[in-house]
Amino acid sequence: MKVKYNLIHEEKNTQARLGKIETNYGTYDTPMFMPVGTQATVKTLSPEELKDVNSGIILSNTYHLWLRPGENVVDHAGGLHKFMNWDGPILTDSGGYQVFSLAKPKDITEEGVYFKNHLNGDRLFLTPEKSIEIQNKLDSDIAMSFDECPPASADHQYMKESVERTLRWAARGKAVHNNERQSLFGIIQGGPYEDLRKFSAIETVKLDFDGYSIGGVANDDESKDDMYKAIEYSVPYIPKDKTRYLMGVGEPIDIIEGVIRGIDIFDCVLPTRLARHGHAFTHSGKINLKNAKYKEDFSPIDDECDCYACKHYTKAYIKHLINSEETFGARLLSIHNIRFLIKMTEDIREAIKNDELLEYRKKFVKEYYHEDI
Amino acid sequence: MKVKYNLIHEEKNTQARLGKIETNYGTYDTPMFMPVGTQATVKTLSPEELKDVNSGIILSNTYHLWLRPGENVVDHAGGLHKFMNWDGPILTDSGGYQVFSLAKPKDITEEGVYFKNHLNGDRLFLTPEKSIEIQNKLDSDIAMSFDECPPASADHQYMKESVERTLRWAARGKAVHNNERQSLFGIIQGGPYEDLRKFSAIETVKLDFDGYSIGGVANDDESKDDMYKAIEYSVPYIPKDKTRYLMGVGEPIDIIEGVIRGIDIFDCVLPTRLARHGHAFTHSGKINLKNAKYKEDFSPIDDECDCYACKHYTKAYIKHLINSEETFGARLLSIHNIRFLIKMTEDIREAIKNDELLEYRKKFVKEYYHEDI
Repeated sequence: MKVKYNLIHEEKNTQARLGKIETNYGTYDTPMFMPVGTQATVKTLSPEELKDVNSGIILSNTYHLWLRPGENVVDHAGGLHKFMNWDGPILTDSGGYQVFSLAKPKDITEEGVYFKNHLNGDRLFLTPEKSIEIQNKLDSDIAMSFDECPPASADHQYMKESVERTLRWAARGKAVHNNERQSLFGIIQGGPYEDLRKFSAIETVKLDFDGYSIGGVANDDESKDDMYKAIEYSVPYIPKDKTRYLMGVGEPIDIIEGVIRGIDIFDCVLPTRLARHGHAFTHSGKINLKNAKYKEDFSPIDDECDCYACKHYTKAYIKHLINSEETFGARLLSIHNIRFLIKMTEDIREAIKNDELLEYRKKFVKEYYHEDI
Repeated sequence: MKVKYNLIHEEKNTQARLGKIETNYGTYDTPMFMPVGTQATVKTLSPEELKDVNSGIILSNTYHLWLRPGENVVDHAGGLHKFMNWDGPILTDSGGYQVFSLAKPKDITEEGVYFKNHLNGDRLFLTPEKSIEIQNKLDSDIAMSFDECPPASADHQYMKESVERTLRWAARGKAVHNNERQSLFGIIQGGPYEDLRKFSAIETVKLDFDGYSIGGVANDDESKDDMYKAIEYSVPYIPKDKTRYLMGVGEPIDIIEGVIRGIDIFDCVLPTRLARHGHAFTHSGKINLKNAKYKEDFSPIDDECDCYACKHYTKAYIKHLINSEETFGARLLSIHNIRFLIKMTEDIREAIKNDELLEYRKKFVKEYYHEDI
């Protein structure tokens, strides 16, 4: 089946909305945070641990799986769910972002993109059709259109050409999409330019996708202000009965600001990446367990957290594991950090329900960032 | 309480015996394989996963925990069990083996050993008293005496001096041991020399420890034949009501040969180390999942295995994880490899019970090593 978005409640004071997404693997509440399993595994975690932190949809990467193990291996395994033992919904990105961020140098043509395999240097060519064909074989529940992801600093002229090309690519991808149980989302681009975001949103929606995402917002060279504006410029043109997905965003404040501007789903590698570096989200801010002050801190990472790591382990132990390069440390912190963002979305949903999202933001920013807004 | 060994049954055709070890954390059947958690974590695994593969005692390393996080941190955490969230029995080694294998160069005196910290090059000094003091603070259930581990190639004269020194060190360690709930085991040394093994065994037993181990048998330069002989030279002098522990041994055939010669417990890093390199034990031999032939092998690692990895994942998927350097791969293989050795000891106990251990060996060697004996 195609995913179906059901609007439950619109918050009184913001653009935020409570919804439910129906998928092949059950119905899930939004706003939602999706953990990232780049290589058909959410780094260090088992599927049971993902369920345990209340994960809904997870994301996996077309580019990585295309290169290794190859989409045919996943296809012959019976699809990505069976391959990785995950009986929840999966969204695959299109590979566009990875081609433009990992695989340099590249050569963009109307037909597609030539680039170097980041693993072995081989010259490769990815087209909108190929991206969709790979995703059809991976058999994810939601596929993404193949798009160009130019830097936010690209000038208006280049961005205009890019947005137009991405629209042509979106149409080409949709034309070859051939998987009845898989939904296909369109991606709105346009960088920081209001007219281009509007143009991209309107034209992408005309192509009639099963959902829409706002791309090009997690680039290194983009300011938070530009990101928030890109959402504001795009969202008004997305039909209310379709899912709105902000790609690659997972910093707590950006999730809140995204929800306030009408976003339903988010994904980011941040919680697992931070974990590998010994960092943890807590309700009173991000902490670095490598800091000497935690050497004999026998309290949990966050005393307000209900995750497995916080129930059974201390900062001192996890610090020891991280210092000793023991992967069980990254595993405990990944569980915790993912749970933190998912718990955030649970609290956000409660706040939307009660029309108290701005109060939630004020309290969160005060406690987490120690700032008054 | 001190551990208590209860002899249940002596196999008719060999020196093998079925027993039960009573510990602070329950009673466990022997022969037993102990997974190794060097740095207060069995690499990649949670305590729940260790229970799930039916682990009994686990081993942790005094040398590593002394250097990092330091025995005082563990002590202040409430001991090693609480620090690492393990409510089963723990045996700590003495640090002797690590000092002699990791921390070169070293300078052996009657008082103790000067050596370099393998992490930062600092000059350190470890004595029998210090080793016991550290282990008392770690609060393991079984502590080991501090011993010298000379290479198997050491000449008779050196080995004799070494065995005598180790005996003096054992007495000094025992004299300062001060932890009512912790047992202390003596270590029999003597390399490949029958007279020295006999001497070491008799003199160590005179010191009256709570159990005895046979050390110096997992040295790189020792032949299997020397190892088996070292056991045969030592075991007759160990009282029947005490646990017999063969240190650092985990190769399947060596476990079987050890049991046949009267050994009760074993430990080895082999299952987790093999896992990190993509290797798996199977009932028909060891396999390397990096091998191209497993790329589309959608069968479990071992179709006779009952572990979590074999229940839910395929060779193709685990191969992909190992190729992609995803730690969930090493985790699945660690679960499997540890379960394999523990299941082996379960089968061995059944064979002892039925006085069929030699038949078990014959069948195992045929299936696993493809050899007739």
